Amino acid sequence: MVMIRQILHLYFLFFFTRSNFVKITMAFKFFSTIGTGKSRLIFRQLFDSVSSTYTYLLGDATTQKCILIDPVLELAHRDFQLTKDLNLKLVYAVNTHMHADHITGSGQLKTMSGCKSIISKSSGADADILVKEGDYIEFGNHKLKVLSTPGHTNGCCTFYFEEHGMAFTGDALLIRGCGRTDFQEGDAATLYNSVHQKIFTLPESTLLYPAHDYSGLTVTTVDEEKRLNPRLTKSLQDFVQIMNNLKLGYPKQIGEWYRMVAFWCKSFNTLSVQFFAALKWKQKLSSFSLWLVILLRPDPGHQASLLIALIHVSYST
Amino acid sequence: MVMIRQILHLYFLFFFTRSNFVKITMAFKFFSTIGTGKSRLIFRQLFDSVSSTYTYLLGDATTQKCILIDPVLELAHRDFQLTKDLNLKLVYAVNTHMHADHITGSGQLKTMSGCKSIISKSSGADADILVKEGDYIEFGNHKLKVLSTPGHTNGCCTFYFEEHGMAFTGDALLIRGCGRTDFQEGDAATLYNSVHQKIFTLPESTLLYPAHDYSGLTVTTVDEEKRLNPRLTKSLQDFVQIMNNLKLGYPKQIGEWYRMVAFWCKSFNTLSVQFFAALKWKQKLSSFSLWLVILLRPDPGHQASLLIALIHVSYST
Repeated sequence: MVMIRQILHLYFLFFFTRSNFVKITMAFKFFSTIGTGKSRLIFRQLFDSVSSTYTYLLGDATTQKCILIDPVLELAHRDFQLTKDLNLKLVYAVNTHMHADHITGSGQLKTMSGCKSIISKSSGADADILVKEGDYIEFGNHKLKVLSTPGHTNGCCTFYFEEHGMAFTGDALLIRGCGRTDFQEGDAATLYNSVHQKIFTLPESTLLYPAHDYSGLTVTTVDEEKRLNPRLTKSLQDFVQIMNNLKLGYPKQIGEWYRMVAFWCKSFNTLSVQFFAALKWKQKLSSFSLWLVILLRPDPGHQASLLIALIHVSYST
Repeated sequence: MVMIRQILHLYFLFFFTRSNFVKITMAFKFFSTIGTGKSRLIFRQLFDSVSSTYTYLLGDATTQKCILIDPVLELAHRDFQLTKDLNLKLVYAVNTHMHADHITGSGQLKTMSGCKSIISKSSGADADILVKEGDYIEFGNHKLKVLSTPGHTNGCCTFYFEEHGMAFTGDALLIRGCGRTDFQEGDAATLYNSVHQKIFTLPESTLLYPAHDYSGLTVTTVDEEKRLNPRLTKSLQDFVQIMNNLKLGYPKQIGEWYRMVAFWCKSFNTLSVQFFAALKWKQKLSSFSLWLVILLRPDPGHQASLLIALIHVSYST
């Protein structure tokens, strides 16, 4: 399972590698903090413009321990470099959920820093530490409480940082929006209840940091979303109707090959190992290529939760 | 002058209008703040993914007065909507300098909100209020000090918010970088002295918010840049050499038509009014068009500080 993921990671790395990594090698001792004494927090919001993903760096200024929430594979170098610049020791790479629109940087960060990875047990994903509702993720003198907020996926969590009045909502709640529920293990009614029971019950001044924003907004509050969210201010019934009629395309990062593979899954509906010549894609490839497509379906009940690996057995003509 | 700018604004609006404006109409009363009592500040960082520009909303939670720093034309609706969402009254649209890579949203925001525009006198640009070194920009109980930091352009300013340990550096200092000095009125030695004398002398914990970032970083500190900036940690001589050898292209937002016009400017080198048929661009236009290009050169000594207006006198064939 891990090996197949590594292959998948390598594939994304190959196709989506970016060259603009920040290259800074000097270290430094001082940094700006939030709070005083033992509660001093180093906080940075980071952005991936390709998948519009926010990654969050939270560091304890006293013990120098830090965590990264929702790192992106292609920007793992940037994030790790920043921890070094700020003289921090990365202890955990944490994911709010298993992402469909980008590959997590957790694996890369583990290799680079020796940190542990964390995700919820109900996500079905592999990680060094699997967390559940009510658990705490600790770094130095700080801790985040795990709130289970399923609906976008089964394993979606919100990490509540009570001490500093922040919550990291992943894709459960976005600024004036929410994660899609027509994909993976999505369920609109479940998401509605998660947000209303777990997020909207937090103090109204709580700063909400989402996993994505597509219009350049960086943060919101419980107040704002309770009053202004165009979907989640509706009734449960109306919300479900809205979510079931969004007619969204596949996430752009998954791309054309995913759609093709999804079609195959529908056709075969079993564990399949299929070979096919990528004649349809010939125009897009520099050379004629043969693709070995392995479709693994650990849970046949969930079409979209497939673990898919593409092994490129290419040769030039 | 104002009319020509309006035309230019309309043109950019026509070509670069985006459809993803945040459409929220509900108002709300609560919002998260920094500080306590009269010093309570509402702060939001906003991003334009096209020009990688950061716009900043600073609001006084007591009087509800707010300002926007470096708004972008195409996102003026988003920014104005956010002021309304947060129950704030926009009093000033402020620019750190005259931008080459995007059109300011000041004009649009003036129309929408009745606010006043602010820019430095030495920018040579029009605004309701022209500021200079040592002036203060006040909103409610808060004030920003104007620091003149030329070098990227003559009129570049840094706005220092001493009360909250923040500075808005525009293009003078970017995160691990700085604004280009080979364009407009750029001068590398001037920029080096501005940063070292005006920004690096601020308290080391001061949070520095730039006008742009291209790698997803959102904020830095005086400490970090004094230690890690790959250009500005160098000697003046080395810095000038680096800046004079960057060999950068024109800003992408200015685009092809600008390069064409710049070529014309070089050729004529005087105040010119030129007609030409856009035959070269025919493939890109839905119909044959005739363009009237007005090239105004208020300062013939500075090729790149041209105020250029394109008036589209198109007709279909």
